[in-house]
Amino acid sequence: MSKINLKNLASELELSISTVSKALRDSYEIGHDTKKRVLEKAKELGYRANPYARYMRHHKSKTIAIVIPEMVNSFFLQVINGAESIAREKDYHLLIYITHEDAQKEISIINHLQNGRVDGIIMSLSSTVKDYSHLTECINNNIPIIFFDRICHEIETVKITTDDFTSGFIATEHLIQNGCRNIAYLSISENLSIDNKRMQGYIEALTKYDIGFDKSKIIKCNTDDKSNYRQIKKLLTGPAKIDGIFSSIEKFALTTYNVCRDLKIKIPEEIKIICFSNLLTADFLNPSLTTITQPANEMGATAASQLFKYLDKKRMEIPNENIIIKSKLMARGSTVA
Amino acid sequence: MSKINLKNLASELELSISTVSKALRDSYEIGHDTKKRVLEKAKELGYRANPYARYMRHHKSKTIAIVIPEMVNSFFLQVINGAESIAREKDYHLLIYITHEDAQKEISIINHLQNGRVDGIIMSLSSTVKDYSHLTECINNNIPIIFFDRICHEIETVKITTDDFTSGFIATEHLIQNGCRNIAYLSISENLSIDNKRMQGYIEALTKYDIGFDKSKIIKCNTDDKSNYRQIKKLLTGPAKIDGIFSSIEKFALTTYNVCRDLKIKIPEEIKIICFSNLLTADFLNPSLTTITQPANEMGATAASQLFKYLDKKRMEIPNENIIIKSKLMARGSTVA
Repeated sequence: MSKINLKNLASELELSISTVSKALRDSYEIGHDTKKRVLEKAKELGYRANPYARYMRHHKSKTIAIVIPEMVNSFFLQVINGAESIAREKDYHLLIYITHEDAQKEISIINHLQNGRVDGIIMSLSSTVKDYSHLTECINNNIPIIFFDRICHEIETVKITTDDFTSGFIATEHLIQNGCRNIAYLSISENLSIDNKRMQGYIEALTKYDIGFDKSKIIKCNTDDKSNYRQIKKLLTGPAKIDGIFSSIEKFALTTYNVCRDLKIKIPEEIKIICFSNLLTADFLNPSLTTITQPANEMGATAASQLFKYLDKKRMEIPNENIIIKSKLMARGSTVA
Repeated sequence: MSKINLKNLASELELSISTVSKALRDSYEIGHDTKKRVLEKAKELGYRANPYARYMRHHKSKTIAIVIPEMVNSFFLQVINGAESIAREKDYHLLIYITHEDAQKEISIINHLQNGRVDGIIMSLSSTVKDYSHLTECINNNIPIIFFDRICHEIETVKITTDDFTSGFIATEHLIQNGCRNIAYLSISENLSIDNKRMQGYIEALTKYDIGFDKSKIIKCNTDDKSNYRQIKKLLTGPAKIDGIFSSIEKFALTTYNVCRDLKIKIPEEIKIICFSNLLTADFLNPSLTTITQPANEMGATAASQLFKYLDKKRMEIPNENIIIKSKLMARGSTVA
C-alpha cells in the first residue's frame, strides 16, 4: 500500500469508514475494543489523519492545555503568563498540567487530553521521557501539539526554543573571559535537547579557548535536591579545583549557592556562577546572579499564537518549523567582581 | 412569599418547573431570552438552589478551576502546586485563570465558568473587586466557590486563610523588638480582607508597645511598579524617618530593596524589612529577607480537598467555615543584624 488513508485503513480492518473515523476521534458511539483495534492498526500502518479533514473539523472545546514539567520555576511561570494572555485574547480556556518530570505522568496526562477535552496542547517535555509514542498518537488523534523549550525533534510541528547552543557558548565564554579555567556544567538531563545544546555550546567555547573538555566536569543533576547538593559539594571539594559553574537551570545554581555558603567558598572570588534563569530576584541575590535570561513570556505567547493560527483555521496544517527567540546574558555579581 | 423555591419561581415566571430548572442550569435546550428572564427573576426574588437538588446533580466536567489575581508570585505558585496535586489524585483537570487584579476580568472569567465547564472553583479575589454579585450568581448557578487567602466574608462557603491578624502583629512586633519605632505598612488594597487584617495586626502591635499609629505611614501600593517605587522613595526620603517596613506582599518588599539600593540606605542597619512571602530565594537575597511564610502549598491542597468533599458527595453542602492555617516568621538578615 503506497499511502495509507482512511479508506485503506477501514478496508484493512473490515470496518466502515465512518466507524474507523469515529473510533479515531474517540467517539462515544464506538466500543472500547473496536477503538483499541482501530488505533493499533492505524499505528501499525502509520496512518496519519488527512490534514484537510483536520482542517475541516470544528474546535469545540475552546480550551488549550499547557503541559509543563514543574511549577516552581520562574521560566515556566512566565511562559504560562505569556500563553494565558493569548488564550484570553482568543476567549479560550487554559488548562494547566504538571508532569513533575515524571514520564508516566506525562503519558497519562497526554492520553487524558485526547477525548475532545482540548483543541490543542503546548508543552515542554519531562526530563525522563524517552519514548514519544504518546505524543505522536495524540497528534494522530487530531490534537495538535506545539513544543516550547524542551522540544521533541522527532515530531513534525512548530518548536519554540531559545538559542540554546549559542547561549551555552556565550555563558561559558563569559566565565572564561572572567578568568575561569576549570568550568563544570550542571546538566538537567541527557534526554533533553535543550540540555544537549547548552552542553555543546559549553564544549565549543572550551575548544575555542583551548581548554580541554573533561567529561568528569559534567554533573548530572536530577529532581532530588539533596542528591544534587551532595554531588555539587563533592565536585567543589574534589581535586578538579572548579572555578566556574555553568548551570543548565536555575535550581542547580541556587543549590550551588547553598553549597558555597556552607563550605564558605566565596562567589565570585573563588568560584563564578552563571545559569539559565528568569528569576525576578536575580538582581537581589547575594551576590546577584549572572543569568542567561530567556524570553519566557514571549516563548509562551508565541507557542499559543502558533497553535491558534491552526485552530483559527488561518493555516491548514502546523508546519514543521523551529522558531528561535534569543536569550540575553545579564552579567551580575556572581561572575564579575 | 415566605421562602422562594423552584416551584414559586416557576409560577412567578409562568413557566414550567422543568424549563426554569434547565434555564438555571444553562441548558442548551433553553433560549437566551428565557434564560435571561429566569436569571433576573431568580435574582430579584433571592432564589437559591435547593442544596439537596445540588447534591443530587452529577459532576460531569471532571474539572475544577483555580482563579488567582496574578501569576508571578511565589505564594500563588505554591497554592497551584498544592491544588494540582489534589486534582490529579482525584483524576480531575485543573483550569487556571488569572484576573491580573482586574475586577472586570474576574467577572468575565466567573461568568465564563458557569456553563458546566467546571464542577467547582477555588479562588482568591482580585484586589479591585468591590461588588460580589458575580460570585453569588455563580454559586446560585450551582458552581461552588471555595476561597483562599483573599476571601469574601459576605459569601457563605469555606474560606481558607492564614492567621493574617496574628501574623501582622508578630511581624510588627518583630520589627519593634529589633529596635524599629517608625514603621510603615505597605498595603496592597483596602478592599481585601487579608490586607485589613494584616494592617490591624500592625496597629495592634504599635498600640501594645505605646507607639502612636500614624495614618500617613500606611502606603497604598498597587499594580504599577513605577508608582510604587516613587511612593516608597518619597516615604524613605521624607520627614517620617522610617526605620522599619512591613510589606503586605513580597513584590513591594522587593521594590523597597530597589529603592534602598538606589538611595544607598543600608538594610538592616538603617531600615529593617519584613514581608509576607514564599520566595524560595529569600535566603539568598542581599540581605536575606525576613518573611512571614505562608503555608501556601497546604492552603491550595486544603481548598481543593474541601471542594472535593462536596464534589465527591461526602458532604451535602459546603459549610460556612473559616479554616486558618498558621504562617511562620522566618527571621533573616533584613531585620536582624
